[in-house]
Amino acid sequence: MSELNDAVGWPVLHQFYRIDRARWRGLDADQRAAGISEFRDALAACASEEGMQFVPMAGIAKSDFAVMAVHPDLGRIQRLGQQIAATELGTCLQPVYSFLSMSEVSEYMSGPTDWAKQLIEDQNVAPDSPEFAAGMERFRQRIEKYADARVHPQLPTDMDIICFYPMAKRRGEAQNWYTLEFNERKRLMGDHAKTGRAFAGRVLQLITSCTGLDDWEWGVTLFSHDLKSIRDVVYEMRFDPASAVYGLFGEFYIGTRLDPADLGDALCL
Amino acid sequence: MSELNDAVGWPVLHQFYRIDRARWRGLDADQRAAGISEFRDALAACASEEGMQFVPMAGIAKSDFAVMAVHPDLGRIQRLGQQIAATELGTCLQPVYSFLSMSEVSEYMSGPTDWAKQLIEDQNVAPDSPEFAAGMERFRQRIEKYADARVHPQLPTDMDIICFYPMAKRRGEAQNWYTLEFNERKRLMGDHAKTGRAFAGRVLQLITSCTGLDDWEWGVTLFSHDLKSIRDVVYEMRFDPASAVYGLFGEFYIGTRLDPADLGDALCL
Amino acid sequence: MSELNDAVGWPVLHQFYRIDRARWRGLDADQRAAGISEFRDALAACASEEGMQFVPMAGIAKSDFAVMAVHPDLGRIQRLGQQIAATELGTCLQPVYSFLSMSEVSEYMSGPTDWAKQLIEDQNVAPDSPEFAAGMERFRQRIEKYADARVHPQLPTDMDIICFYPMAKRRGEAQNWYTLEFNERKRLMGDHAKTGRAFAGRVLQLITSCTGLDDWEWGVTLFSHDLKSIRDVVYEMRFDPASAVYGLFGEFYIGTRLDPADLGDALCL
Amino acid sequence: MSELNDAVGWPVLHQFYRIDRARWRGLDADQRAAGISEFRDALAACASEEGMQFVPMAGIAKSDFAVMAVHPDLGRIQRLGQQIAATELGTCLQPVYSFLSMSEVSEYMSGPTDWAKQLIEDQNVAPDSPEFAAGMERFRQRIEKYADARVHPQLPTDMDIICFYPMAKRRGEAQNWYTLEFNERKRLMGDHAKTGRAFAGRVLQLITSCTGLDDWEWGVTLFSHDLKSIRDVVYEMRFDPASAVYGLFGEFYIGTRLDPADLGDALCL
Amino acid sequence: MSELNDAVGWPVLHQFYRIDRARWRGLDADQRAAGISEFRDALAACASEEGMQFVPMAGIAKSDFAVMAVHPDLGRIQRLGQQIAATELGTCLQPVYSFLSMSEVSEYMSGPTDWAKQLIEDQNVAPDSPEFAAGMERFRQRIEKYADARVHPQLPTDMDIICFYPMAKRRGEAQNWYTLEFNERKRLMGDHAKTGRAFAGRVLQLITSCTGLDDWEWGVTLFSHDLKSIRDVVYEMRFDPASAVYGLFGEFYIGTRLDPADLGDALCL
Repeated sequence: MSELNDAVGWPVLHQFYRIDRARWRGLDADQRAAGISEFRDALAACASEEGMQFVPMAGIAKSDFAVMAVHPDLGRIQRLGQQIAATELGTCLQPVYSFLSMSEVSEYMSGPTDWAKQLIEDQNVAPDSPEFAAGMERFRQRIEKYADARVHPQLPTDMDIICFYPMAKRRGEAQNWYTLEFNERKRLMGDHAKTGRAFAGRVLQLITSCTGLDDWEWGVTLFSHDLKSIRDVVYEMRFDPASAVYGLFGEFYIGTRLDPADLGDALCL
Repeated sequence: MSELNDAVGWPVLHQFYRIDRARWRGLDADQRAAGISEFRDALAACASEEGMQFVPMAGIAKSDFAVMAVHPDLGRIQRLGQQIAATELGTCLQPVYSFLSMSEVSEYMSGPTDWAKQLIEDQNVAPDSPEFAAGMERFRQRIEKYADARVHPQLPTDMDIICFYPMAKRRGEAQNWYTLEFNERKRLMGDHAKTGRAFAGRVLQLITSCTGLDDWEWGVTLFSHDLKSIRDVVYEMRFDPASAVYGLFGEFYIGTRLDPADLGDALCL
Repeated sequence: MSELNDAVGWPVLHQFYRIDRARWRGLDADQRAAGISEFRDALAACASEEGMQFVPMAGIAKSDFAVMAVHPDLGRIQRLGQQIAATELGTCLQPVYSFLSMSEVSEYMSGPTDWAKQLIEDQNVAPDSPEFAAGMERFRQRIEKYADARVHPQLPTDMDIICFYPMAKRRGEAQNWYTLEFNERKRLMGDHAKTGRAFAGRVLQLITSCTGLDDWEWGVTLFSHDLKSIRDVVYEMRFDPASAVYGLFGEFYIGTRLDPADLGDALCL
Repeated sequence: MSELNDAVGWPVLHQFYRIDRARWRGLDADQRAAGISEFRDALAACASEEGMQFVPMAGIAKSDFAVMAVHPDLGRIQRLGQQIAATELGTCLQPVYSFLSMSEVSEYMSGPTDWAKQLIEDQNVAPDSPEFAAGMERFRQRIEKYADARVHPQLPTDMDIICFYPMAKRRGEAQNWYTLEFNERKRLMGDHAKTGRAFAGRVLQLITSCTGLDDWEWGVTLFSHDLKSIRDVVYEMRFDPASAVYGLFGEFYIGTRLDPADLGDALCL
Repeated sequence: MSELNDAVGWPVLHQFYRIDRARWRGLDADQRAAGISEFRDALAACASEEGMQFVPMAGIAKSDFAVMAVHPDLGRIQRLGQQIAATELGTCLQPVYSFLSMSEVSEYMSGPTDWAKQLIEDQNVAPDSPEFAAGMERFRQRIEKYADARVHPQLPTDMDIICFYPMAKRRGEAQNWYTLEFNERKRLMGDHAKTGRAFAGRVLQLITSCTGLDDWEWGVTLFSHDLKSIRDVVYEMRFDPASAVYGLFGEFYIGTRLDPADLGDALCL
């Protein structure tokens, strides 16, 4: 499976902004109208750019406006932040929180040993039977598809409530994730993933890696149709030992998907 | 009881602001008068909006002005923050603290098993008697009413001193709320609730949930007629094991209810 | 003694500011002169206001200017902050730290049981003697006077160096003030108070309560004629178990009493 | 080896900035064009200055622009920061993070005792043989070259993705790096260095010392051709006991090498 | 020795600033020239003021400009900060960090008991001999001179690299400085002082007390001819148990002594 684990993920940028209302209102009506047009066009251009996945959001509570962007090229991601800032409205956006991470395949993903064990022990398939070879092949295809979806994520386009938070694993004096054995970590993450899967259809979860890129170790982006599902999945997962004992959480940011055409109305510009 | 636990609560927004006095005083007298009018009307419109519960406050110490808003629709809550910011006075309001949460029914609320136990053991009612069925029905109605008041809260309109703070439960290396058994947590929260109920009439307490929505896990809003009651209830509850051992508290914000008509006087605008 | 413990204290506000020198110097000479006059008059008016105790300070290090105010009415305290901010010089004051607390009678104050014990065991007075009744009455009067001085504090007018800091009691996983028995807490606080009393005449100490009103649990205001006494009392008290093991301290602010007439000179306005 | 350990390293400065877009856009087109020219020339002059090693970067997420500079003279490093700030574009740069450190030779570097042990025990060389003397001399030369590369570092010019973060060693109540014996620390750092060497060619790592110069104890600068290598080396090293148990990490900053000629395009100026 | 311990030290102020370059560059050339003159004269006047010790610095990394001032009168120290702020260049200085402390004699300084022990046990002097009396007198004079140098410090004028940091002693749940016996603390501080003395000539160290005056308990100012000596002394002392187990460190600030005549050049004004 190492070739899957080594697959090179895509850079992912989250940026959250406050609007400097004093500056925005200081512009005259024509400048503001032009500023909205320019910004709306810039958002639409990013959204339709080849290779770019781009989600503008209206922020709630901690931020007023936010974007999430996924693109294979780090240079494009770097310049995207500057492009937004360089617009007229962009000069009224004060960065509140920024986060760089990259998509990855989880190292705890099941591999051939897990598959063989499951076929032999759970399904009573003889290890040298044609059924075994076929079963192994089915597993490989399923996992390859899953791994590809992790390393080359396709953001949902229909779930409009979006939550982002960074996290890390505890390195306490008594409880330290990084001194646990691999198999213990794999077991804990497996149980944790089950809780998440119980929310399939209600919450889509994207985990991206940021060790070395940010102060935290992972970024979590949740997409849902409703706020309660986001509250419920995070609350229920907090009781899993992987979270209860080892999870450290950063700031939580909430927004709703913003149609560029609604920019002026949604943000009362 | 699961249908009660699953009831979808309402989004709740708390926003605390400092007034940028330099900018406000930079406006001329006419602009300021118009700004006060515009803002007063905006507050009054929100307060009378169908489905909206809206409490403007004059802040003390940490903030100058604040609002609390409850509305079933998250989109309305999102736009409300922008509406305030988009006014002339709004451009002089610098966000100090913002908090998004949602109303919920406590998972530790008593259920049929608790009721039956109370009827049989405390009141000596035979489990197959008509008295038992009637008792169970009384409990169910009482709890349903209580649950509805939690998930669809009606903010008080007469208690004018308002305190807000966020909280979470400790996940320490030795003392971890999230690794306790459900029944132990229920017992601790039951004792804690008793302390709170001793302040009935003096302090009205609204607990809202924010796991996944904010860095904390709950928001607490206290309404009272006097400051000492707020000091007393928080101080006394701090000795309950649920708080003493497991409670983590964020920043405390205090304000007094602001009649929009008094806006200019109360804030010396 | 419960009627003493229940006595309703007065709200106390501490506000610390930086001066925005760029804005101040941007005013022309006439505006500055008028601004100093206006502010000096506002300070003087507050200082002489019926029911108000008001201490303006020149800050050192962390702040440039500060005020401390005590008034029975929370609404007056709320408006006071806005009054200061609404002046010309007020628009040049950037809040650095703000703290709301209220005066209180300590729950660890001695009561009839302590008095009787002291009379019988320390002074060999027979419990049914007229001396005992007289002794109890003397204690009651002394404590009532002391309690009244705590709940209705009179700020000193002659000690010109003023220190403020907030504090809380530790709720650690091994050492938790809030899980100690009342008598153990009373004993620790009694020892602590002795250290403080050794500084009588050198340092006047006002403890105000802020649980539920601020992130901390108490505010400490020290008044002295000299800086070393403040350094000494805080340093010596730090070795008392009540502080050494259980004390948590916030930021320390230092200032010197400011005569409104010296405003311009002291702050180089 | 003490003369190597005592070698005086070079001061190293890292500076990360946000661009104040409102101010930049407030300049007219001519001023901006002149500002870009002036800044581009200043960057180029620094880059070609005798004795100076200078790396300008386009920041991602946490910063917009950054520089790293190495120079033997602290005074030159001090003035460099002011030179950048004193340009027109420099007045639009708001410092986000600054870090002063100096290059050093690791105290855990192998010395004559280690070499002799390796020759005698691992390579079966007799301690009084000519082979032993030759082996010791080879070690000495290799280590001297290595030490010189540490104390007089030459920054790579081809690896374009650059990561910086500060770190310290834990001084916990149960796990305290500074109470470990030297040999235990040396062993832990030796294992840790092996993980790092496995990334030779993919990641170049520069460790600089800052105890006494900054809140942290070391600065780590990583150079790579690709983002995943940076993520991988930091993630893998986190499981080494030296990091897992004793490592404390500050903020992580990421940037890409900026050719001064591309200044305007890369930053959308 | 109590009269030495009770000696009243001098207030010490450290102030670190960022230069607001946008504001400075907004002044025209004449205003800037006048601003430099005015500020240079103000620095020179402070430096030559009777009773004042005054060190202006060019900051590196965390600050651009800094001053350290020692004066017997707290009121003079208070006004000094305002004087700097009230100049034209002062309006462009944004406070980054401020620290008030006072010089003191260490409570762990040796006293008559230590001297007698040293004479009798180490030097075999008979306690009732004239040599003993003479030895005690020599100790007394030496310590009085040392104590006077601590309580009335004379800042060096030749060491041009200056480091400042605040510190406190740990009050952990397992390791608490403030619950140690006096003799254990004295022993730990004695060992710690030895490490410091090994740097005599390379580093001059001034320890000032700030319990009650600042969030920390001591301020440390290091003067040296070279950066590596500062790095070395702080690094080596970190392994002393007094630091390794009990030391808590705040932010470190580094600067170089600034000759007022070089103001414009050093800061590129």
